[in-house]
Amino acid sequence: MEYAFSDKVLGLKASAIREILKFTSEPGVISFAAGNPAPEAFPSGDIAEITADIFSRDPVGALQYSVTEGYQPLRDAVKDMLASQHCFDSERDDLVITSGGQQASELACKVFLNEGDALICESPSFVGCMNAFRSYNAELVGIPLAEDGMELDKLEDALKTHPKAKLIYVIANFQNPTGLCTSFEKRKAIYELARRYNVMILEDNPYGDIRFEGEDIPSIKSLDTDGRVIYAGSFSKVLAPGMRVGFVSAPREVINKIVVCKQCSDVHTNILAQRICYDYLSEYDLKAHLEAIRPIYRRKCRLMLDCIKESFPECVSYTRPQGGLFIWVTLPDGADMLGFCKTAVEKYKVAVVPGTAFMTHESDPCCSFRLNYSTPTDENIEKGCRILGSLLKEMFGE
Amino acid sequence: MEYAFSDKVLGLKASAIREILKFTSEPGVISFAAGNPAPEAFPSGDIAEITADIFSRDPVGALQYSVTEGYQPLRDAVKDMLASQHCFDSERDDLVITSGGQQASELACKVFLNEGDALICESPSFVGCMNAFRSYNAELVGIPLAEDGMELDKLEDALKTHPKAKLIYVIANFQNPTGLCTSFEKRKAIYELARRYNVMILEDNPYGDIRFEGEDIPSIKSLDTDGRVIYAGSFSKVLAPGMRVGFVSAPREVINKIVVCKQCSDVHTNILAQRICYDYLSEYDLKAHLEAIRPIYRRKCRLMLDCIKESFPECVSYTRPQGGLFIWVTLPDGADMLGFCKTAVEKYKVAVVPGTAFMTHESDPCCSFRLNYSTPTDENIEKGCRILGSLLKEMFGE
Repeated sequence: MEYAFSDKVLGLKASAIREILKFTSEPGVISFAAGNPAPEAFPSGDIAEITADIFSRDPVGALQYSVTEGYQPLRDAVKDMLASQHCFDSERDDLVITSGGQQASELACKVFLNEGDALICESPSFVGCMNAFRSYNAELVGIPLAEDGMELDKLEDALKTHPKAKLIYVIANFQNPTGLCTSFEKRKAIYELARRYNVMILEDNPYGDIRFEGEDIPSIKSLDTDGRVIYAGSFSKVLAPGMRVGFVSAPREVINKIVVCKQCSDVHTNILAQRICYDYLSEYDLKAHLEAIRPIYRRKCRLMLDCIKESFPECVSYTRPQGGLFIWVTLPDGADMLGFCKTAVEKYKVAVVPGTAFMTHESDPCCSFRLNYSTPTDENIEKGCRILGSLLKEMFGE
Repeated sequence: MEYAFSDKVLGLKASAIREILKFTSEPGVISFAAGNPAPEAFPSGDIAEITADIFSRDPVGALQYSVTEGYQPLRDAVKDMLASQHCFDSERDDLVITSGGQQASELACKVFLNEGDALICESPSFVGCMNAFRSYNAELVGIPLAEDGMELDKLEDALKTHPKAKLIYVIANFQNPTGLCTSFEKRKAIYELARRYNVMILEDNPYGDIRFEGEDIPSIKSLDTDGRVIYAGSFSKVLAPGMRVGFVSAPREVINKIVVCKQCSDVHTNILAQRICYDYLSEYDLKAHLEAIRPIYRRKCRLMLDCIKESFPECVSYTRPQGGLFIWVTLPDGADMLGFCKTAVEKYKVAVVPGTAFMTHESDPCCSFRLNYSTPTDENIEKGCRILGSLLKEMFGE
């Protein structure tokens, strides 16, 4: 039978990186291609204890249907947490619990974008959310990313030339895939441009709590006087991603629309997972937990940076993240990046993600690839970097 | 600030029933308005045990990111279960775990419908899925529902007059809101019409396992020789809805597209909940559990039917379900159904759902309301029906 699929999914063509990623599950492959938080950072014992306690106190409450907005005590706890970071204004905002941060971004797009409207994002940016935006037939407009955030003149050009731009999507902290942060100055400038051209901002902050060096930078949401910033966060990197618990804070009118759309999507987020998060926030010490897990990421990141320094040729450059999960490596201009990634995994069994996956248009030129340091073991970080270094030298010289 | 929302969410206007439903959480209100399975039917103790066991065996596996398609052992177990019911053809079909049955229907719509395409459904039908379809700007075409399923001549008319119809949405077993089943003859006829007019069928079967009277009727999916039926199911009514675990079985090409869309929505379904379902299927006896819970629903349904018979006036009619969660009560032609529902909850503190909520267009004429018997206590079923009966007699006579 011939299926007449919607133009929404016809646009979502299978990505070239799938070919590479499918090798990562093969035995013996060292994968730097994942986006997983470090498993040793999960408070597994605490979560097991909390869960047993919930089932002994209120099994029906942990298993019955719940409300779309989310478990009220968790909503209140997250509101308090965000209010203390100036990311929630109790006069203006409301908050809904989502099924991971990804759902927050998808719903924000659905609520604001008609087909053919434009969404402005960093280029490169997170492929998962870009695909979500594409799945609503949004036109993605990529703004080149400098060390300190989007290039502002390019952002203004895009706002001028795309009157149907509705949202600017920003990952301001330890961006996926680059690991870069947007500076405070640029956060202010992006907000001012959003005001001038009357567009909304979707600030996605899944990695902000995983800062292991330097000082926190105030969020764009904390600068918001108009009510034009939608702020998405997640428990995926601070507790555990398999639970799929995130949240979105935005002006009440926006949250009302997000709730209607979430009801259509999955009715509500798994209630046991929401209660686990609440009990963790209320009965355990999240701050102490974060203090304890940041050194895990710091150590792994430094180990990988040290190995890169030792093994990679001078002709490649790379970011030096102060948090998050990723390093972004850039080959010399014109280098055959895809060929490198392919050879690395097929011949040498080391998987990285080709940078094209993160471009606004996969055909945009890109000589970079993404490395993840949180998932592999120390031994594999060392071994994998040596292997990549040899191949880099072989293909691109010193 | 004025927000320029998308036309997708502008169409989803707050429903008149919200006004009524918001009373149901007030103290002293007897609610027949829920759609919750009976909490005494949850295998809570077993689920608590399974969960503790999973955390002791594989805490990281229960908390780390997982694949979009779903937990492989659960996928295999559900495929086997569906294959034995002829709802999965291992040559042709694939299966993905979804975040509840609702997500399966939402994604099926997203995969097939462009904006303005038509989706044909029973009228009345399940408001949650209709809203999901509306949120993609699908044109809903409602087909009047007879005792034994959609009126076939009306269905054929709709197929003739709506060349942009892509999907027929059918809840063939114990339909929400009516509790009615589509007969085997009509299932065959609906399938033949779908062939003739080359449209897909989305068969949503959340209630099929809760049959407490009569004989199982083969699914439309079991008749599918072309690969035009998408079959959605759920653990919500057989294990517990708060876990949000459902599944969808369809030809491989369709599942591939659903997977891409699910990845955009929530990456994957809560992995602990998937593992709980798998362990329940593999280590416990689901058949025995279903045998044990069906009498709970049978008893509650009969109790409500007995109370209706005793208290309601002759001028109202109602369905006599053989399974599921709902009874559909119809007032005399021209009766002020909304006024009745409003008075019942505001003055007499008994909540029911006005039938307009389930119409393809909320302005369609409707003299019916929905009653749920699985959630209220026996005492409240008796008391609530007496109160409704008095008000019905007062408003509409004997």
